[in-house]
Amino acid sequence: MTFRVQVRVIPRPGLLDPQGQAVEHALGSLGFAGVGSVRVGKAIELSIDAASADEARAAARAMCDRLLANPVTEDYAIEVEA
Amino acid sequence: MTFRVQVRVIPRPGLLDPQGQAVEHALGSLGFAGVGSVRVGKAIELSIDAASADEARAAARAMCDRLLANPVTEDYAIEVEA
Repeated sequence: MTFRVQVRVIPRPGLLDPQGQAVEHALGSLGFAGVGSVRVGKAIELSIDAASADEARAAARAMCDRLLANPVTEDYAIEVEA
Repeated sequence: MTFRVQVRVIPRPGLLDPQGQAVEHALGSLGFAGVGSVRVGKAIELSIDAASADEARAAARAMCDRLLANPVTEDYAIEVEA
């Protein structure tokens, strides 16, 4: 069975995020008020062949640990869709 | 009230995504089988002050249309958390 998996990789809290700061500043310049704590990271979508959703999630976690995310500087979140 | 908003910006289907292809190839080289259709885009997290979740979502949509996404080449998805 093929599962569609959404991965979100975001800079860890406390770490500098210059891209997030730039976006926050740009949003303010465009007139958007009340915006804060902007963080910018990577969104990765992929299809994984697996026997179950749990297996697909485990595979995605292994991919994050080995390639998609930097464990020192980034957190990741995984969502598995049918 | 402050809402935490997750935005995902992904290259439109059919458009070339060299970064996605590179990741797909790298995952294959690392021994991950059964992986396909990899797309890489941006994940943006931000806090928005708004009266309701609907208002926060509308603000996020306006931000996507004006700054965060390129409507010609990218699709976006918005999730609002309390």
